[in-house]
Amino acid sequence: MNQTVTITKAYSSDSQFKLKDGAGSDAIHTTPIYAYAVCKLQTDRNIEGIGLSFTLGVGNNLVCQAIDYLVRHVEGKEINELMANFGKTYKAMSDDPNFRWLGPHKGVVHLALASVTNACYDLWAKSKGLPLWKLLIDLPPKDIVNTLDLSYLEDVLTREEALEILNKASETKKNREQILKTGYKGYDTSIGWFSYSDDKVKENIRKAMDAGFTAMKLKVGSADIKRDIRRAHLVREVAGDKATIMLDANQQWNLPKAIEICTQLKEINPYWIEEPTHPDDVEAHVKLANKLAPIKLALGEHVPNKIIFKNFLQSGCMSFNQVDAVRVGGISEFITISLMSKKFGVPVVPHVGDMGQIHQHLVLFNHISMDHEAIFLEHIPHLQQYFKNPVNIKGGYYQVPQEPGMSADLLKY
Amino acid sequence: MNQTVTITKAYSSDSQFKLKDGAGSDAIHTTPIYAYAVCKLQTDRNIEGIGLSFTLGVGNNLVCQAIDYLVRHVEGKEINELMANFGKTYKAMSDDPNFRWLGPHKGVVHLALASVTNACYDLWAKSKGLPLWKLLIDLPPKDIVNTLDLSYLEDVLTREEALEILNKASETKKNREQILKTGYKGYDTSIGWFSYSDDKVKENIRKAMDAGFTAMKLKVGSADIKRDIRRAHLVREVAGDKATIMLDANQQWNLPKAIEICTQLKEINPYWIEEPTHPDDVEAHVKLANKLAPIKLALGEHVPNKIIFKNFLQSGCMSFNQVDAVRVGGISEFITISLMSKKFGVPVVPHVGDMGQIHQHLVLFNHISMDHEAIFLEHIPHLQQYFKNPVNIKGGYYQVPQEPGMSADLLKY
Repeated sequence: MNQTVTITKAYSSDSQFKLKDGAGSDAIHTTPIYAYAVCKLQTDRNIEGIGLSFTLGVGNNLVCQAIDYLVRHVEGKEINELMANFGKTYKAMSDDPNFRWLGPHKGVVHLALASVTNACYDLWAKSKGLPLWKLLIDLPPKDIVNTLDLSYLEDVLTREEALEILNKASETKKNREQILKTGYKGYDTSIGWFSYSDDKVKENIRKAMDAGFTAMKLKVGSADIKRDIRRAHLVREVAGDKATIMLDANQQWNLPKAIEICTQLKEINPYWIEEPTHPDDVEAHVKLANKLAPIKLALGEHVPNKIIFKNFLQSGCMSFNQVDAVRVGGISEFITISLMSKKFGVPVVPHVGDMGQIHQHLVLFNHISMDHEAIFLEHIPHLQQYFKNPVNIKGGYYQVPQEPGMSADLLKY
Repeated sequence: MNQTVTITKAYSSDSQFKLKDGAGSDAIHTTPIYAYAVCKLQTDRNIEGIGLSFTLGVGNNLVCQAIDYLVRHVEGKEINELMANFGKTYKAMSDDPNFRWLGPHKGVVHLALASVTNACYDLWAKSKGLPLWKLLIDLPPKDIVNTLDLSYLEDVLTREEALEILNKASETKKNREQILKTGYKGYDTSIGWFSYSDDKVKENIRKAMDAGFTAMKLKVGSADIKRDIRRAHLVREVAGDKATIMLDANQQWNLPKAIEICTQLKEINPYWIEEPTHPDDVEAHVKLANKLAPIKLALGEHVPNKIIFKNFLQSGCMSFNQVDAVRVGGISEFITISLMSKKFGVPVVPHVGDMGQIHQHLVLFNHISMDHEAIFLEHIPHLQQYFKNPVNIKGGYYQVPQEPGMSADLLKY
């Protein structure tokens, strides 16, 4: 299937989902709602592009209104023509005159850009009847790079270097397609939300291990440091020495506090410590990373754009890149940042505001076409009932999605 | 006058102003509208607090809606009680649960915070019948610091250090009150907007010099580098060797291009080069500053918060700090950043999204109470007819405002 598909109408939808019993809670976001600012692209065919950006509910309507403004850049366009040079449209949207002032390239306007951009990639894949990962891994490097906006990265990643990374990886691509048989390993973030009791955490660890997960994440950042230490030891004890355990402070600490607490948390041998302090503070993370080595930092969930990712990568403090395609400017900027991260030798392990629906495609692409190491992908199960094609995890592995598009369709809008 | 004043109702107003004949145009923002997302605080007395944040029109309504959400933190409060510990309310607003996700501390939600915060300071000054600068310079250092949120700055500016800076400056404060007699020197940004013809620029320079200005700014960042060079030489030629000339690229260049062009612009001996590349890119500015020395960089117009300012100051690339109280989280964060800047020895020369109405108060405070060098304050005349008490410039000097509040009242809303 390869048809012309024209976007006839584009608009937003505000989709919000309540969570139960403390699910989703962390040190900073104690009572989250999970919400999507959805971009819908209606077409002249029987298919629809669906884009998502993720928020915690309050103000999701502002992102929706920004989507309704930005879609003027894609309405009336034929999707294959649009994607043949999507980098230009991306730049036009991110630098939309006067609207740009509200960022630039961050906050509400950038979350809206994410949703519109994602809807375009989704429609592109659906127009070809392919799952997004398949569309992407089969594209020639030039066609991939044409969907990107590399401006302001000229000092670290020229168009030629981007092409070179993809060309070089394509030589060994076939070997890495093995992963399509095994699926992509997952890790479980839902065992240790911030407000969960010790007993609930213990029970969740056992369930996760029974389901095949060997890696899991605990929320830390308590006002009472002893609670963090106790819970971290508890997870290590129940999960055992072989388990991979990550600790996530969700920006709760300042630098002196982060140094003090992380030094103690090292005892449980965490695979990483995530978002220890403010997401804009490159320099604080550099100092912390130096203090904590060999314990590594995972950063990027709240980093809004390629420029700040560039600074983080240049600084050397980011050992795991957690870029999220529903926070940065969508799949286009996700791929841009993944290429840059490859150049700096930093693995990409996305935060999944999309609950892994879109990222399951993107990590397959990153691994196969960019030769990024396949470490694992975050798994958060709480919204599965709302997706048309929820991620399918077996034995702790994401099964490769086969439906056309990027698996972001919701059952209701 | 010192009365209890309770905020009975708070809401936003979307105020937009068209500009004429290319005024306000720069390399990135070619057809701006000047707009304020106004926060109005109604009270139980015959006074009203007015806050502003500045945008270029498109999406100003999004900021207004965010204001309408945030005002729940100040409604019902008595203004003197509120300001006695405003730092806590500021932090509660900037970390408002779930709303925070849309930043954090940047973009639409942070612009809204600016407007609400500014309205509180305005009302505070009006409640005492004082111009803002007078209220601020008479406050004991502890009361100033109580209006600030120093979180995430503990590695560079503790509460004790902030107090120390103010206490030390207060010893020599009387000498600096001399400036209340002369007024605060201004510089003219309106001589060389991007789309102005050479003739118009020449005419504007002569007018500016006749009006007493000795410092002025030219917009650069043309696609055709020769145009930039020609216009820069033209300004130097017409204004003469003694004039202070600044060049402003408004983020137009990437790093390699900035190095190439700035190296040529050095010839006209600019006092600074402003916003040469992307405002988030600390590392690119470090490299550029090293290449261009002794020519200095003026940065900060689009830097959204104290954290990124901290990184810029730590890096050493920011020679002039252009923090704007209608871009960062209002006067509270402006003072925080000014204190930090004082510690790093970097002068504060604000960008004036408010057309100088509020900043004329703030630079007096910075100079008198913080011992910041009084270099000069940007002057942009295009909205004077819309303000109730427009800035009054004589002989190139801002005359000290005497009306109660922070001079941000508009004639119509």
